[in-house]
Amino acid sequence: MNKKLDELKNRLREVEDLNNASAVLGWDQATYMPPGGAPARGRQMALLSRLAHERFIDPATGRLLDDLQAHAESLGPDDDDAGLIRKARRDYEKSIRVPPQLLAELSEHGALSYQAWTEARAANDYATMRPMLEKTLDYSRRLADCFPGYDHIADPLIDFADEGMKAVSVRALFAELRAQLVPLLRQILEQPPADDSCLYRTYPEDQQRAFGEMVIKQMGYDFNRGRQDKTHHPFMTSFSLGDVRITTRFQPDYLGDGLFSTIHEAGHAMYEQGIDMSYEATPLAHGTSAGVHESQSRLWENVVGRSRVFWNYYYAQLQSVFPDQLGDVELDTFYRAINKVQPSLIRTDADQMTYDLHVMIRFDLELALLEGTLALDDLPEAWRARYQSDLGIASEDDRDGVLQDVHWFAGVIGGAFQGYTMGNIMSALFYRQALTAHPEIPAQIGRGEFGTLHGWLRENIYRPGAKYTANELVERVTGGPLTIEPYLAYLRGKFLD
Amino acid sequence: MNKKLDELKNRLREVEDLNNASAVLGWDQATYMPPGGAPARGRQMALLSRLAHERFIDPATGRLLDDLQAHAESLGPDDDDAGLIRKARRDYEKSIRVPPQLLAELSEHGALSYQAWTEARAANDYATMRPMLEKTLDYSRRLADCFPGYDHIADPLIDFADEGMKAVSVRALFAELRAQLVPLLRQILEQPPADDSCLYRTYPEDQQRAFGEMVIKQMGYDFNRGRQDKTHHPFMTSFSLGDVRITTRFQPDYLGDGLFSTIHEAGHAMYEQGIDMSYEATPLAHGTSAGVHESQSRLWENVVGRSRVFWNYYYAQLQSVFPDQLGDVELDTFYRAINKVQPSLIRTDADQMTYDLHVMIRFDLELALLEGTLALDDLPEAWRARYQSDLGIASEDDRDGVLQDVHWFAGVIGGAFQGYTMGNIMSALFYRQALTAHPEIPAQIGRGEFGTLHGWLRENIYRPGAKYTANELVERVTGGPLTIEPYLAYLRGKFLD
Repeated sequence: MNKKLDELKNRLREVEDLNNASAVLGWDQATYMPPGGAPARGRQMALLSRLAHERFIDPATGRLLDDLQAHAESLGPDDDDAGLIRKARRDYEKSIRVPPQLLAELSEHGALSYQAWTEARAANDYATMRPMLEKTLDYSRRLADCFPGYDHIADPLIDFADEGMKAVSVRALFAELRAQLVPLLRQILEQPPADDSCLYRTYPEDQQRAFGEMVIKQMGYDFNRGRQDKTHHPFMTSFSLGDVRITTRFQPDYLGDGLFSTIHEAGHAMYEQGIDMSYEATPLAHGTSAGVHESQSRLWENVVGRSRVFWNYYYAQLQSVFPDQLGDVELDTFYRAINKVQPSLIRTDADQMTYDLHVMIRFDLELALLEGTLALDDLPEAWRARYQSDLGIASEDDRDGVLQDVHWFAGVIGGAFQGYTMGNIMSALFYRQALTAHPEIPAQIGRGEFGTLHGWLRENIYRPGAKYTANELVERVTGGPLTIEPYLAYLRGKFLD
Repeated sequence: MNKKLDELKNRLREVEDLNNASAVLGWDQATYMPPGGAPARGRQMALLSRLAHERFIDPATGRLLDDLQAHAESLGPDDDDAGLIRKARRDYEKSIRVPPQLLAELSEHGALSYQAWTEARAANDYATMRPMLEKTLDYSRRLADCFPGYDHIADPLIDFADEGMKAVSVRALFAELRAQLVPLLRQILEQPPADDSCLYRTYPEDQQRAFGEMVIKQMGYDFNRGRQDKTHHPFMTSFSLGDVRITTRFQPDYLGDGLFSTIHEAGHAMYEQGIDMSYEATPLAHGTSAGVHESQSRLWENVVGRSRVFWNYYYAQLQSVFPDQLGDVELDTFYRAINKVQPSLIRTDADQMTYDLHVMIRFDLELALLEGTLALDDLPEAWRARYQSDLGIASEDDRDGVLQDVHWFAGVIGGAFQGYTMGNIMSALFYRQALTAHPEIPAQIGRGEFGTLHGWLRENIYRPGAKYTANELVERVTGGPLTIEPYLAYLRGKFLD
């Protein structure tokens, strides 16, 4: 068995390393590549992805997994090798079910659709995207149909990002959340709005950067095993457990973007840096789901980084970095500014309180599209109606409406949005659990100390990597199923404060 | 035939793209990778190199080449496809002759030897390296013996770097050159030495960098298809014809390193940027030999960048960038400083006049080692004797003697040095040819205009890439064989001036 297991690990290591190499090429493309490098780079990344895929779906992988199945079961659910075999088998079963031809068509259509969208969005032109979306919807259904036996057609698509989650349960959870959030938002908006003008002053990039990097270093992001660079859109990427990088961007006349982007991506990165080093170059060496990943970015960005205790400690330091900009601004004013609640049209600009309403609109609409209960002709209007009912505002044009997010226009409808709100829900759930174990955590944050929180997260969330699914992890950590109660309590406590 | 040719090109494109992807990983390793990334990076690069090699030596490649042989011959020697098939066949024949087992052993021994050398050099410890070199010599001979029928055992090793060159002719050329250079050096050293103290002032890195980048941009290095970053050891690397990067380093208290490194690497890079774009991702999309490559770095660095006409134009600009450092330094003093001739122990620090003497010592000694006419026990003493006779100085220790260069200690003895001096010889040869076609070139350089020179080089040297061997290229460009006369005339003209 050890020989077979080594064979499997060698094979998986090559798959991981090919994907990791492709990730390096992608990072370079987004950070430093000169314009002339673009045509070859796309080709090179496609080659590496194809080779990784071919090696993974090779029947030899399947035979090794078959041979190791009984061995894995004999080891018990908590054994690392058993977890590896289990995870590899699930990935393998999924990968071999999708015909290469469909994958290739999807990828080609996705590229065309994305290209068309970049122009159509600027031109506020839903009509052009309408037939593209029709095709995307068709491909998405065909992709789902590679996994017969689903309860809901969105289930296989959700499963790609948030393994084990199903449309029916997510929908129920979100309906419950929405039913509470909409009236809570109304209640919050009855209060006088915060003055966030202090954030819109001139904040030189170098100081923004230095302050942000100082903060994430103290939080626990390890610069010996990572680095931060600038990109148009911030992201985290990993080339091995020893090299987990983040990118950010800075607005010279707005403080609220760069700093919180940096913390957000560092949250993702600390998750991957914290994975058990013995999982290096295996399918376990990743975050376990989009939702759990987002729980860590949002926990550090919002639950910690926008908390009062955090700024009790850091605000004086921020003032000393920006004395001209913030010297005359009270801590309380600054705290309210970075937590200002204001319904807006754009998801990515949304505050912590309204963000999930944006997400759930998309989730519900894509389910309706997949089910066929909503027609693409009616989508823009359905979008506006939900914005009006949930957020009290709606975009007249489609540019800031249905055309705003890339997700539906890059190849698949379904499965890409639920993780954002799952992440918020889990961020509060995990944080509460950490506080139950270590009630001293808020006081420590108030002294700029994150070791206890980071240590608890590392042991309980990070270290297992992808060994347990999100649901299994929640069950293990909290002793129960996923629940929105801690998140709602957190939001109420913070915004009705 | 077109279908077979397309198949061959597809196969070769994948090989190139795998090697290019590995090069991106290598660039990242040298520039931005955090320390924690090292273990995985070595593994990832080894995987990509292995996959490229496996794909290339696959018998399917050989069958395609066989099938296309007659077609290639029918096309005539100047046809691009014929050139591609010819070059691919030569590379293939070489690759399949070396058993993978020998390659693996060589690579492993090379890594061990390199590791030992980094410590032995610092400790001035030849004794430790002596048995390592014995093994290296044995591997080098076994590598050569994969190519039976050679005239000299070094021929196959020379051929790896400078295809088509042979020990007997290189040795004859070098003997002739040395016979002229040694007395010429004596003659030059009778003149009073130049005062180069002006180069050893404080030159802030940012200004050095900006000046160097301004210069190479004007020379013709295309920053839309490349970029410059900092590394310990400057190098050029290419990921496609649209992405040819250089690296450099700066010494804050010495002007003579960063600027000329930048121009040197830009010379290499302009060569690759100038290759016919239709050769993208084929074996033709490279410089044709180490020597021709070096001819371009040395042409731009020395023949242009250390010329009087060049500084007639640029010195005032350099003075305005560094008014405190150079305001009181005459152009003539500066010109003599950057061209100061002074025999030294270290090849990489050598001036233009003595550089080839360093190279030829190594070339002659490695031939003698391979032949068995020099024993490893006698190598340090032989080194000292040649330094004494050629340069008039010798190192008492081995650190700055036989242990100074990495080449022999990284796995192979033979073939790695001749290209440096070949490059110098060819730089003068090509430059003379360019001047024959365009006598106005020096005057243009004196106005900061490089278009005519760069255009001539692009059409005659760069565009063909690896379509012709170095000897073929020289023959095509000059109408005759490689000759040292232009180089000697150039050196005499410059240093006896």
